[in-house]
Amino acid sequence: MSNFKDVVIIGFGLIGSSLARALKKADPSIEITAIDMNHDYLNYALDNKLVDAAYDYYDSYLADADIIVLCTPIGQMGTVAESIAPYITDKTIVTDAGSVKQSVIDSVSEALPYPEKFVAAHPIAGAEKSGPSAGFATLFTNRWLIITPIDETDLQAVEKVTALWELCGANIDFMEPRHHDLVLAITSHLPHLIAYSIVGTATNMAEDLQREVIKYSAGGFRDFTRIAGSDPVMWRDIFIQNKESVLDVLQRFTEDLSELQKAIRQDKGAFLQDQFTKTRKIRNAVVDSGQAGRAPYDEQ
Amino acid sequence: MSNFKDVVIIGFGLIGSSLARALKKADPSIEITAIDMNHDYLNYALDNKLVDAAYDYYDSYLADADIIVLCTPIGQMGTVAESIAPYITDKTIVTDAGSVKQSVIDSVSEALPYPEKFVAAHPIAGAEKSGPSAGFATLFTNRWLIITPIDETDLQAVEKVTALWELCGANIDFMEPRHHDLVLAITSHLPHLIAYSIVGTATNMAEDLQREVIKYSAGGFRDFTRIAGSDPVMWRDIFIQNKESVLDVLQRFTEDLSELQKAIRQDKGAFLQDQFTKTRKIRNAVVDSGQAGRAPYDEQ
Repeated sequence: MSNFKDVVIIGFGLIGSSLARALKKADPSIEITAIDMNHDYLNYALDNKLVDAAYDYYDSYLADADIIVLCTPIGQMGTVAESIAPYITDKTIVTDAGSVKQSVIDSVSEALPYPEKFVAAHPIAGAEKSGPSAGFATLFTNRWLIITPIDETDLQAVEKVTALWELCGANIDFMEPRHHDLVLAITSHLPHLIAYSIVGTATNMAEDLQREVIKYSAGGFRDFTRIAGSDPVMWRDIFIQNKESVLDVLQRFTEDLSELQKAIRQDKGAFLQDQFTKTRKIRNAVVDSGQAGRAPYDEQ
Repeated sequence: MSNFKDVVIIGFGLIGSSLARALKKADPSIEITAIDMNHDYLNYALDNKLVDAAYDYYDSYLADADIIVLCTPIGQMGTVAESIAPYITDKTIVTDAGSVKQSVIDSVSEALPYPEKFVAAHPIAGAEKSGPSAGFATLFTNRWLIITPIDETDLQAVEKVTALWELCGANIDFMEPRHHDLVLAITSHLPHLIAYSIVGTATNMAEDLQREVIKYSAGGFRDFTRIAGSDPVMWRDIFIQNKESVLDVLQRFTEDLSELQKAIRQDKGAFLQDQFTKTRKIRNAVVDSGQAGRAPYDEQ
């Protein structure tokens, strides 16, 4: 039996709907409320019995919540926190599922009356498709859930958020917020930026060439299109809110790419082979870590 | 019944061994000979009955071949062509499976006594792993096989190479060699260069950070490590032999990436969202083309 009865999910897209499915599956007695401004999403949630109640406004019903989970794009989280602030008590735990942590902590903590009850968290799971119908109950199973508490964060609140995600099958880890943002800039944000960029390069090509690129996309480009098919609003917010770390790792990447470019121009085969052999070692380490076999694509 | 009885495969790695498997499966009466300097590869081929004969040298047995398929890294193809030249007749068709076409046509045609019987071709299929044990019979099933004939190429030779790959289940297409090299630079070579670069960036990081990047690699980075786990020698050759097209598309990519970088620095959210929405359309076109569902990774 879980130690929370009433969970409110704000933002009922891929992550929000997957969370609802996972919780209902783990403990059908948990009451789940969805909040979204998109009526199609709310109707989907009700029609599929993923939630017990659904609202497109914030009101006193929020006072009953044991835990409120913000699953909106991160750019909206400060505003959402302002909207729920009048209705919550010092018993209400608030958490989020955003891909950037420091900026969310800043904007949400400032808006909430009990910022010590806000526990920033990030499930490293997702999919290329968005919206509630893309969600599924096992999205978080055996995936990492990173909690980034700060000095002020209430420890019991951290425990409750840990329990919530453990119920969904996630493995919990803790990290300092800015460090999380740097690590994710490398493992997720930079790969997405690059994928968006290379697929964008194709959109600028002549129509004939573009058609051929699509036709013969199996050569690696296809993998990039999958990443570049991710939710545009979500990723707009991530890049802007994690600007500092993203620009930092982009700078390192650009330097390394220039070095490879120069080696190609100067026919430095031995250098290239040496570099490509080193990267193979990282691949093997990823395979050894047990992260490689997950299919087809799991990211937020 | 196929119209060739004696096929020689030079270079018995992933592609060569997959070709042998596919041919034997389609028509067990085809006699297959493997040539490789690696005795482990030859023993593997014989032990697993993938071939009827195996050699680590070139000799008069080559005169019996109906078709000789060069499956070595492209940097070695000119030398291999020189080695087989003394033994072949004007009946022998020579073809290849290299990822770059113009440079292979140049180096191989120059070395062969009957260059009109050389048909350059490229199966757009592959895998992250290399070596003969990584091969499988269905590697080319429903994959594109691009033939890049030039004015001098003998049409009957083209027909035979078409028949060879159709026997393996491939879909045949024709292209001008330099145009092939440009299209592949976009769909395959640039994505590989970028993947090598971003994974290379991680190899330069402090050990602690690198460990975390591997641990949380599910966020997109993992897909890049898979691409960057490809054969170092093969890719060294591809970049150097397709230098012109690779540097051309790399230039376009770098310009587009700089534009995204500037938009992030200047908080231009609307521009980013607009760009990310355009790339989603390309993803949908790839899905519609039927190229998206192939798993897990198929490339050369």
